[in-house]
Amino acid sequence: MSRVFNFSAGPAVLPEPVLRQAADEMLDWHGSGMSVMEMSHRGKEFISIHAQTEATLRELMDIPADYKVLFMQGGAIGENAIVPMNLIGRTGRADYVLTGDWSKKSHKEAKTYGQVQVAATAESSKFTAIPKQAEWKLDPGAAYVHICSNETIGGVQFHWTPDTGSVPLVADMSSDILSRAIDVRKYGLIYAGAQKNMGPSGLTVVIVRQDLLGHALPITPTAFNYKLQAEADSMYNTPPTYAIYIAGLVFQHVKKMGGLKAVEEHNRAKAKLLYDLLDASSFYRNGIAREDRSLMNVPFWLKDETKNEAFLKGAEARGMLQLKGHRSVGGMRASIYNAMPIEGVQALVQYMKEFESQHG
Amino acid sequence: MSRVFNFSAGPAVLPEPVLRQAADEMLDWHGSGMSVMEMSHRGKEFISIHAQTEATLRELMDIPADYKVLFMQGGAIGENAIVPMNLIGRTGRADYVLTGDWSKKSHKEAKTYGQVQVAATAESSKFTAIPKQAEWKLDPGAAYVHICSNETIGGVQFHWTPDTGSVPLVADMSSDILSRAIDVRKYGLIYAGAQKNMGPSGLTVVIVRQDLLGHALPITPTAFNYKLQAEADSMYNTPPTYAIYIAGLVFQHVKKMGGLKAVEEHNRAKAKLLYDLLDASSFYRNGIAREDRSLMNVPFWLKDETKNEAFLKGAEARGMLQLKGHRSVGGMRASIYNAMPIEGVQALVQYMKEFESQHG
Repeated sequence: MSRVFNFSAGPAVLPEPVLRQAADEMLDWHGSGMSVMEMSHRGKEFISIHAQTEATLRELMDIPADYKVLFMQGGAIGENAIVPMNLIGRTGRADYVLTGDWSKKSHKEAKTYGQVQVAATAESSKFTAIPKQAEWKLDPGAAYVHICSNETIGGVQFHWTPDTGSVPLVADMSSDILSRAIDVRKYGLIYAGAQKNMGPSGLTVVIVRQDLLGHALPITPTAFNYKLQAEADSMYNTPPTYAIYIAGLVFQHVKKMGGLKAVEEHNRAKAKLLYDLLDASSFYRNGIAREDRSLMNVPFWLKDETKNEAFLKGAEARGMLQLKGHRSVGGMRASIYNAMPIEGVQALVQYMKEFESQHG
Repeated sequence: MSRVFNFSAGPAVLPEPVLRQAADEMLDWHGSGMSVMEMSHRGKEFISIHAQTEATLRELMDIPADYKVLFMQGGAIGENAIVPMNLIGRTGRADYVLTGDWSKKSHKEAKTYGQVQVAATAESSKFTAIPKQAEWKLDPGAAYVHICSNETIGGVQFHWTPDTGSVPLVADMSSDILSRAIDVRKYGLIYAGAQKNMGPSGLTVVIVRQDLLGHALPITPTAFNYKLQAEADSMYNTPPTYAIYIAGLVFQHVKKMGGLKAVEEHNRAKAKLLYDLLDASSFYRNGIAREDRSLMNVPFWLKDETKNEAFLKGAEARGMLQLKGHRSVGGMRASIYNAMPIEGVQALVQYMKEFESQHG
């Protein structure tokens, strides 16, 4: 089979040139006689890969020098505990903004580690919109305010940066990191599982302002203590070396594409194709507030849900996979991360039009 | 450069046929049109890979049905906290046996989560021998007894299974899992980072007797809660999918080699070559009690340490890498895990003889 169009919400499609390079270098990285998988994390070869991966990410995201970049394990669900373990100790309190399933999960887990407040929730809109800043009730004594910048299940995304005053803003950017230019200085901490826009699952990137380190609760496992990992350049324990290498190749690929501004333009163009079709259709619906729509995950529903199976089958026959919506909401979902080519979205839109004309 | 002989203590050498297959399948796994890295962990393709990986490990290690196999993240250093978080709650107490740097580290971390006792320590021998069972002072009220079956830095290994009565035995087998046949029934829990005998770093395998689940401390992160992971087939969060796939290929390779008895024979033959040379030499020394010597990591010292640099340089020139000893003990260390071919050990022994005859 030739390569498919993979609309998975994550792990997700990766740039083909990255995969080709990884295949070419599998048995012998740069004349070292070793696969990257086989390298000691303390050997000069891997240390150079690690350093270049971090440097490229810093360049792409314009990460200031007073922020540490950590390459960790455990994913964003791990971070739901690791973030409060490391940060809540400063005041014992934290604010959470609820915009969908992922931020609700983060909030629930944090309760174990301190006094946690819901500063705002989109529940009244059934999580189809981001709560306006004016409605937020922030606790000035919170150690941080937590948001999820993009909700993969609901399909809402922040298109503005909250102002949390002197309280550090913490963002779960698992599903939209590197999809657009952001100002890292406006955040105290950013975390992201790699498996959407960065690489394979099993790697978690944490970008943290240095002055926030040093407040870990005593029950924090040393492997997940940001301060220890920052002091050890993410090598307090053996890092997920191969995943870091692939992420490094992805970062270089994003740089070659022109950096985050170019990537954002590309992502906007892809999302527009889908939303324009959904807005013009009475056969499909999306249902998310226009100003809060995700550029990464586009959930949509056939108004006649009895046609779901036929829709998915037809898509699969055309090499378009993983379009089934999350089991908690049903319908369809097209995840169109950075590495989804515009041709994939064009093919989907074309198919959706054909399906509508046959079944509408 | 052609492939080298990589004596790294981990991440470490992998079987070449595994790397070749991974390279071949990088862009299109079994006609799926996707790399394994790109697959949704909930899609049928990855679920089949996951199931086959677990089934092959169960077959190789003869894992009984009442044991769960978990594929997690965080490595053995993560497990130093995750094990007590999940197990110590039953009685609040645990016993640790200290045989070197890794078991000392496990013991130190566990103190955060309960009342922890040293049941035996090899300190009086400077960790050059495993403490005899008769010397162990076990607490019958302990929730578990923890050992490290092989110490990669000191080079000692358990060649017998401790009898801990009705108290479950917990073993960190990071550096010797799959190197020999063991009786899983004698253990309550086995954990191992993948990066020595199983695959890339970033994957942690946990084999746990089901009746030990359900005692997690309230502060246990859900991503690291064995019970939640067991109930979700290791998919409570996104598992490290690509590392699981590579481990699966390694397991199949071990099976083709004839299983763990054949692998053990191979490992014994490799280690014998090195220990025979060390025993016969007055130029090199090993210093570990004969009955406790590791088959995986062979530390040795040149009696004249001023020749260390020359030794390492000569080895590197012959394509033998990562022979420098751990910074805490100096000297040399040859890690000869499953995937180190006997030709690599033969080449090392030949070089050691030549070096001795030139410099002795």
